[in-house]
Amino acid sequence: MSLHHISRLRELSATELDRLTAAIRELLITKVCAAGGHLGPNLGVVELTTALHRVFRSPHDRIVFDTGHQSYVHKILTGRADGFDTLRAAGGLAGYPQRAESEHDLVENSHASTALSYADGLAKAHQLRGESDRRVVAVIGDGALTGGLAWEALNNLGGSTRPVVVVLNDNGRSYDPTVGGLADHLTTLRANEPDPGSTLFQRIGLTYLGPVDGHDIPALEAAFRTAVELDRPVLVHCVTQKGRGYLPAETDAADHMHGIGVLDPATGTAKSGGAPSWTSLFGAEMADLGAEHPEVVALTAAMLRPVGLHRFAQRYPDRIFDVGIAEQHAVTSAAGLAMGGLHPVVCLYATFLNRAIDQVLMDVALHQLPVTFVLDRAGITGPDGPSHHGMWDLALLSQVPGMRVASPRDTTQLAALLREAVAVKTGPTALRFPKASAGQDIPARNRMDGLDILYRGEHQPLDVLLVSAGVLAGPALAAAELLAHHHIGVTVVDPRWLFPINPTLVHLAARHRLVVTVEDGLRTGGLGTALAQACADARVATPVHNLGLPAAFLDHGARGDILTACGLDAENIADTVRALFEHPAPLKGLLR
Amino acid sequence: MSLHHISRLRELSATELDRLTAAIRELLITKVCAAGGHLGPNLGVVELTTALHRVFRSPHDRIVFDTGHQSYVHKILTGRADGFDTLRAAGGLAGYPQRAESEHDLVENSHASTALSYADGLAKAHQLRGESDRRVVAVIGDGALTGGLAWEALNNLGGSTRPVVVVLNDNGRSYDPTVGGLADHLTTLRANEPDPGSTLFQRIGLTYLGPVDGHDIPALEAAFRTAVELDRPVLVHCVTQKGRGYLPAETDAADHMHGIGVLDPATGTAKSGGAPSWTSLFGAEMADLGAEHPEVVALTAAMLRPVGLHRFAQRYPDRIFDVGIAEQHAVTSAAGLAMGGLHPVVCLYATFLNRAIDQVLMDVALHQLPVTFVLDRAGITGPDGPSHHGMWDLALLSQVPGMRVASPRDTTQLAALLREAVAVKTGPTALRFPKASAGQDIPARNRMDGLDILYRGEHQPLDVLLVSAGVLAGPALAAAELLAHHHIGVTVVDPRWLFPINPTLVHLAARHRLVVTVEDGLRTGGLGTALAQACADARVATPVHNLGLPAAFLDHGARGDILTACGLDAENIADTVRALFEHPAPLKGLLR
Repeated sequence: MSLHHISRLRELSATELDRLTAAIRELLITKVCAAGGHLGPNLGVVELTTALHRVFRSPHDRIVFDTGHQSYVHKILTGRADGFDTLRAAGGLAGYPQRAESEHDLVENSHASTALSYADGLAKAHQLRGESDRRVVAVIGDGALTGGLAWEALNNLGGSTRPVVVVLNDNGRSYDPTVGGLADHLTTLRANEPDPGSTLFQRIGLTYLGPVDGHDIPALEAAFRTAVELDRPVLVHCVTQKGRGYLPAETDAADHMHGIGVLDPATGTAKSGGAPSWTSLFGAEMADLGAEHPEVVALTAAMLRPVGLHRFAQRYPDRIFDVGIAEQHAVTSAAGLAMGGLHPVVCLYATFLNRAIDQVLMDVALHQLPVTFVLDRAGITGPDGPSHHGMWDLALLSQVPGMRVASPRDTTQLAALLREAVAVKTGPTALRFPKASAGQDIPARNRMDGLDILYRGEHQPLDVLLVSAGVLAGPALAAAELLAHHHIGVTVVDPRWLFPINPTLVHLAARHRLVVTVEDGLRTGGLGTALAQACADARVATPVHNLGLPAAFLDHGARGDILTACGLDAENIADTVRALFEHPAPLKGLLR
Repeated sequence: MSLHHISRLRELSATELDRLTAAIRELLITKVCAAGGHLGPNLGVVELTTALHRVFRSPHDRIVFDTGHQSYVHKILTGRADGFDTLRAAGGLAGYPQRAESEHDLVENSHASTALSYADGLAKAHQLRGESDRRVVAVIGDGALTGGLAWEALNNLGGSTRPVVVVLNDNGRSYDPTVGGLADHLTTLRANEPDPGSTLFQRIGLTYLGPVDGHDIPALEAAFRTAVELDRPVLVHCVTQKGRGYLPAETDAADHMHGIGVLDPATGTAKSGGAPSWTSLFGAEMADLGAEHPEVVALTAAMLRPVGLHRFAQRYPDRIFDVGIAEQHAVTSAAGLAMGGLHPVVCLYATFLNRAIDQVLMDVALHQLPVTFVLDRAGITGPDGPSHHGMWDLALLSQVPGMRVASPRDTTQLAALLREAVAVKTGPTALRFPKASAGQDIPARNRMDGLDILYRGEHQPLDVLLVSAGVLAGPALAAAELLAHHHIGVTVVDPRWLFPINPTLVHLAARHRLVVTVEDGLRTGGLGTALAQACADARVATPVHNLGLPAAFLDHGARGDILTACGLDAENIADTVRALFEHPAPLKGLLR
């Protein structure tokens, strides 16, 4: 059977189905090991996805994948097997559903726990528009069910009579084993045939079917058909095995190869080491910090290892809290921990902070509680696409009264700024760093009121003030050196703490002819706009030009390529500064 | 018994308790009818709060009130009865817990569903710090349990063994009857003695006690003592009656006098009519819009009447969706509705949009879905304090790619802009207006590329461009007239659509000597900063000065007084413009 032209999927015999699923697994293992991507989750849903496409008729019926990293099999079954040669590369097959690729893809957002809400909306639309023959299916993992949005949707689905089929893909984990009372309940359900009426899902108003062996296609199909016939909200509990059919994934103790880099498919081991990542260096610092600060506790939203907290967890098992995929609870329970006298460090991907900005504002900052947020994957992340880029954190955090935000340019600064953050006893602090290997340290020429001067043009020292955020110090420094060849004198300054704006930055701005800010966050609301406003407030007339990420959803691709496309590499920065400096006219406006 | 010195609360006899609760009710009715505030919720928790303070020893034990508008009885019992003469007035007793008032108050945030997360954090802190004698109690309504954050907390509490007492104050409603599968489940529980092990709460890992008559102090105390003895996570299901003991509230069909204005306490009727509110005028427009646009559906998060949707709901009962206190689901299910071919209008208080900004970004905007957000209570709300002011919406929405945000200056513009918003077929739109009476219409002198020119100084027409957002057109216009007396010529422009920045605004800016922006949102991230950046990008050298709300948590008080304190009344605007215009020096910086 060729995966490139899957015809007659609904008419395949049992033997043909076995060959199909084996071929899908082989393709997944080969291609994902070559490109990197989500392997374990997709190996776990080969049969489940096949059964879905045999029972439901996409795109007439709507299949919504929660989180979306488990949609590779769906992509293969809807004619995209060829694309796996370019998986997650710029212009290539996306690692998540993407509407531009296929009419079978609906939801591109990779943030967890959304699928049931989409399904509720779609079912309401079908009812109002009289499209009663269209089915709605939401595929959601047990991990994503711990997210509050899923609860809100279950409450709405359970209170309605509209037909929605919730397919619970229960593999017992997201990255990490699923936590909390829900996980205990699912464990009970997996072990026993539940009595009618006794599950949590029935209590909230859904019909429960299961547990079903998620690798038994006939059993899955029978359950899905029963769910359709019930013509009301139904949850089908499918028990799957993450990494199924690939021994290195099945036996991987960390996370069953949830997301992998490039691997040798024969052994499942990484081909090369590479420089240590920001994440791992942060993890080492946190483990040390735990010894220095007994009041420090750490929180993760189901991502212990991805945010580097496993070493801290090993050393301080009673001071680490995995709250599940539940960023809101991570933040508000951290507020409670701080109110109780501890100093919580909440470690999240920058993009997932969006989920809890109200809690940062109203539960932490309003109460001036000492909580530190550590935002991994800040800025451009790369191959995971628009909903994984950490683009909004600076724009959001800069609007939180009393919030202090640091962005280390190197790992020496990471260690120092982390310690400065946990030393703050009133009000929240945040640190952000990218998904990248940590580079060489960038020494300061001198420190001035907390700012680090990284470079001073020798001959015309007051031409341009280049203010760089975090890791963009590297390109900024290189740009300054390029500009020196053009006899433009640049001062490069790293504010270290981006928010609140350091008043000395404004004084420096007043002493230069042009200010250019450089940040890997939204240019419409970050360091640059805040510095420009501070300059305007102080009646500093030096023009301030902001460089940063455009207010747009940026596609997947290599991190460096995307930064270059956004003009944030050394050459582009130098070119922009030069153009602004050498051609300031035509300045418009009636200058007095 | 004097409410001003409640001594020996724990030793009172049954008769004394009856006198106490009667006196509390009388004080509540008298004072809240005089000042306005939350009456129904507090009348419902007189016995419950009394029992709590008899069993638990605040502040050593920690009592966290969810949402906080039901904390009046708690305030009376902790020595603040006197303060009710200044309830909700500037400098007076807050309508919510406030730590500055009392060591018995912990959480000031009025956004629902947070208490269980705080309690989880506090219990963890107590355990780590060896404070095993401190109890943690979270008081939460059934309405607030529909919020996802509460689910995330229940999952964490249920998966733990730490002693937390969750007091479920079940009155069957928030503003509106509680919706969904949870409400059905609670109805079942209220009707029957549940079998052990069969409630939703037990399924998620908490011990369930109840149902308890929430107006029977001995029964409540017994249940709370049992909960303490169990020494693990327990939910005590207390059935209360909103508005209890005050006939006008008990019989109020709208919401049992949830939140009231000034009333005659004898009859429970409002003393005066007053001008119609923005909310009611919006509600009338929506009802009309429903007839014009069959694809329009409306969503509310448990606030049908407060956001003015009850008329729409009466006329189009199949096109209105109350999702419970669940802003995230409101937004993501709206995305599903839009994907299904409808045009959802999601009506929220501006402050509660914070709860769902990730869903606005990733579920609506990333998919360019036509969803309209209508934000009531935008800007300063007044007596409900820092977590009710709608201060962050512009800062957040302006960072959403493709988002268009309008702010009508009068109700004619409201009608027009609402229709423009639902006519947009690709991408989200938003409208914001305040909690206020709608004033007179403000006619435009002329419209230019979608902008309304409201005023032109006659003699020096190009001195100052005053850009006002929404209802601040009134003070801006009055300021322009004041400035005319000082021979400063002002152009007042209402952009109508604040985001994206209209390029014609930049052209206008270039033709004036000074630009001042005026908005009732955070001045650090709104119309003003965006216009300043657009001017800088276009190399327009006209100085841009931003007026708006400070990045701070603003206390309760009268809306007009707070706006004046923030410099957003006509006199302050005029003074600021005059100072900036007449004394532009000392401009700092090395101008070329």
